[in-house]
Amino acid sequence: MPLIQVVQTPGKTAEQKRELVRELTDTYVRVTGGKPESVWVTIGEVATDSWSIAGETLADRAAKA
Amino acid sequence: MPLIQVVQTPGKTAEQKRELVRELTDTYVRVTGGKPESVWVTIGEVATDSWSIAGETLADRAAKA
Amino acid sequence: MPLIQVVQTPGKTAEQKRELVRELTDTYVRVTGGKPESVWVTIGEVATDSWSIAGETLADRAAKA
Amino acid sequence: MPLIQVVQTPGKTAEQKRELVRELTDTYVRVTGGKPESVWVTIGEVATDSWSIAGETLADRAAKA
Amino acid sequence: MPLIQVVQTPGKTAEQKRELVRELTDTYVRVTGGKPESVWVTIGEVATDSWSIAGETLADRAAKA
Amino acid sequence: MPLIQVVQTPGKTAEQKRELVRELTDTYVRVTGGKPESVWVTIGEVATDSWSIAGETLADRAAKA
Repeated sequence: MPLIQVVQTPGKTAEQKRELVRELTDTYVRVTGGKPESVWVTIGEVATDSWSIAGETLADRAAKA
Repeated sequence: MPLIQVVQTPGKTAEQKRELVRELTDTYVRVTGGKPESVWVTIGEVATDSWSIAGETLADRAAKA
Repeated sequence: MPLIQVVQTPGKTAEQKRELVRELTDTYVRVTGGKPESVWVTIGEVATDSWSIAGETLADRAAKA
Repeated sequence: MPLIQVVQTPGKTAEQKRELVRELTDTYVRVTGGKPESVWVTIGEVATDSWSIAGETLADRAAKA
Repeated sequence: MPLIQVVQTPGKTAEQKRELVRELTDTYVRVTGGKPESVWVTIGEVATDSWSIAGETLADRAAKA
Repeated sequence: MPLIQVVQTPGKTAEQKRELVRELTDTYVRVTGGKPESVWVTIGEVATDSWSIAGETLADRAAKA
């Protein structure tokens, strides 16, 4: 333990995911002193038409920008 | 903050999602008095063969109905 | 179905929670056309020392403001 | 209530999912004494390139084994 | 892998929790053929004033019953 | 976006939490190139009698060790 669950928008490469889970794990272990073997990281994705800030989807915000 | 995470079955249109995140955000702000900018909404989906009530998937329940 | 999971900071009254779950349910049903009986809402809390934006806890941000 | 959320890697058959939700529900009811009708189970999936142990993705671990 | 996250209302004994995590793990392994060592179960709680069905909290529903 | 949700056992100090959210945010930004302002981190806790590996709670595993 712990469990670190990342939720982000799609579009990251396999290499970015690989680096992300490795680096988040290292960071957690460095700060808390736990063992790497007990750290799980999962990466989930939510599309930009299904994520909103201030009631507006990220897709719509991007279209305006 | 807050975070509002909706999990539903697939099949909603883009327009329904757009309206849903806007209306849920408005509702939250109206009830609690917070600021819209601090409200995140995410919509996730779980297929009907992966969601059960009383041990029976929604897909199987629909097939019987 | 669906499931609506709200995560917010502590401090809301019982009456606000009561109104929040009722209003979020009504909103969901109005937008999607589902049945109220199939809507679950849960409210969870995360303390301000355990929630960050831009790497700074909400507690620290509030202390500065 | 309760809600039982399973997260696993892809590759299970429809029949395994059907059995899984039925058996997890039965188990919960047997241990706690609740009613089957109040038990929701959802099954979500995280790909092996998006799940890590000790900072290494399950995909990379499998490739080495 | 997998992760099984149970969310329920408070009031279960330590012995019920112990039995619950053991039995859910056994069930998962029996159905899917995985290894017990790779199964994590977590139990979370949501109070009855923070969980609603059809827009009414479980606390209010219980008070009426 | 993104959202990084950490779940761990209780017992971390306020200073560890402060460092953890800051360092996880920095790590995410460094790997993916996003903006710090769009990164939310939440820390949740699950007690050792409510978290199991291989069907045995962390509390029971610790008592044996």
